[in-house]
Amino acid sequence: MLPRFLAAIDRASGTARLSGEEARHLSQVLRLRAGDEIAVFDGAGAEFVARVEQIARDGALARLGEARTPAAEPAVLLTLAQAVLKGEKMDDVVRDATMMGVAGVEPLVTEHTAAHLKPGRAPERWRRIAIASAKQCGRAVVPRIGDGTPLADWIVRDRSDVRVLLVEPSATVSGHPASTLGPSRPASATILIGPEGGWSAAEIASAVAAGYIPITLGRRTLRADAIPIVALGVLQYLWGEL
Amino acid sequence: MLPRFLAAIDRASGTARLSGEEARHLSQVLRLRAGDEIAVFDGAGAEFVARVEQIARDGALARLGEARTPAAEPAVLLTLAQAVLKGEKMDDVVRDATMMGVAGVEPLVTEHTAAHLKPGRAPERWRRIAIASAKQCGRAVVPRIGDGTPLADWIVRDRSDVRVLLVEPSATVSGHPASTLGPSRPASATILIGPEGGWSAAEIASAVAAGYIPITLGRRTLRADAIPIVALGVLQYLWGEL
Repeated sequence: MLPRFLAAIDRASGTARLSGEEARHLSQVLRLRAGDEIAVFDGAGAEFVARVEQIARDGALARLGEARTPAAEPAVLLTLAQAVLKGEKMDDVVRDATMMGVAGVEPLVTEHTAAHLKPGRAPERWRRIAIASAKQCGRAVVPRIGDGTPLADWIVRDRSDVRVLLVEPSATVSGHPASTLGPSRPASATILIGPEGGWSAAEIASAVAAGYIPITLGRRTLRADAIPIVALGVLQYLWGEL
Repeated sequence: MLPRFLAAIDRASGTARLSGEEARHLSQVLRLRAGDEIAVFDGAGAEFVARVEQIARDGALARLGEARTPAAEPAVLLTLAQAVLKGEKMDDVVRDATMMGVAGVEPLVTEHTAAHLKPGRAPERWRRIAIASAKQCGRAVVPRIGDGTPLADWIVRDRSDVRVLLVEPSATVSGHPASTLGPSRPASATILIGPEGGWSAAEIASAVAAGYIPITLGRRTLRADAIPIVALGVLQYLWGEL
């Protein structure tokens, strides 16, 4: 299996330019040299076989070969709008959601968010995790990691065809089973998932008023960082993507 | 919310006896004393309100009060037969599978199992994790944690009505989508999930020959410890349990 790198791909000149970080992974971790064959992908779905030409401190240059078929992307552009979880849990969510094929992860700041995140200041680490996860799972698409958005702003901005709010069975509105979404695939969908402390009643009311469909994963109590992967799995199964 | 403890429940005498470990959790971690109200469950589905009577080094005694309704159990008795994963990953799988409501976890020893486990020597730690997880998620049932079984022995022993083998898309047999299992609920089901290194061709052949249905989670590459929770979620969704 060829090692895969994120790169700026220039089809006109037939070259791929790797960032300093990707170049270090190539030369220092994987000990690759000029002349070695790699795969490069642009983060937006294109992937090529390539040959390393130059390695420098601030980057590397590779010569494009044949186009390659990366891992298939889901038909539904699915955004996980996830209230920021504490510590490494959010890292795990970004990694797993990338492997599950999401188009984007939007870190949300909500009333009961225990983790500290200033809106607009999502750590660069999450984007690096998404890149590493895409490299590992064969996707040529790197999900967009949002900047960190207050829930109220996100609700206004979200333009997905299907918008879903995951609620606990004990929530102030009763959630429907996921099957009520029906099997017909939307072009795009968002799922909003709350923090460890759950949604406030006002948050649920405002999301529902804005058109989000409250659904539940039933009576299970799951770890906060296990919930998104189960929810994404169920939605993808429902839409025939698993 | 009442703190919950696993206990040997004796309805005849109206008492519940906590083990030394549970008693330490009660007295040293939660700082509870004689006279405090707790909940006790027997690991097999029964749960009561109780009042602490005595606390000693080797256990505690509580007086049973009213019966309580624990978290509802799934209708399908679902066993996760999971090839042992490395390090803490197996711990996470046991914890999450308990929260997902499995009836049992059978640690399997397979050809490509990288983790070291002698058959019959599953660490006591997994049972402790299952207990802690049941306490946390409100189940009064503690899933049975198997001793660690070679795959060939497990296949012979498994008596579930529906038996499923999770395979990768690249496997030597083509897997069906989970929807081929159909929505009608079996009384019991097993899902076999491989180790980080996957199944050998011979293992797949022998499981299929024994009647296991090969299914796939599609083209996703997921972390080995994320796979069981997604697979359990999809099966439970399919059977109307989520």
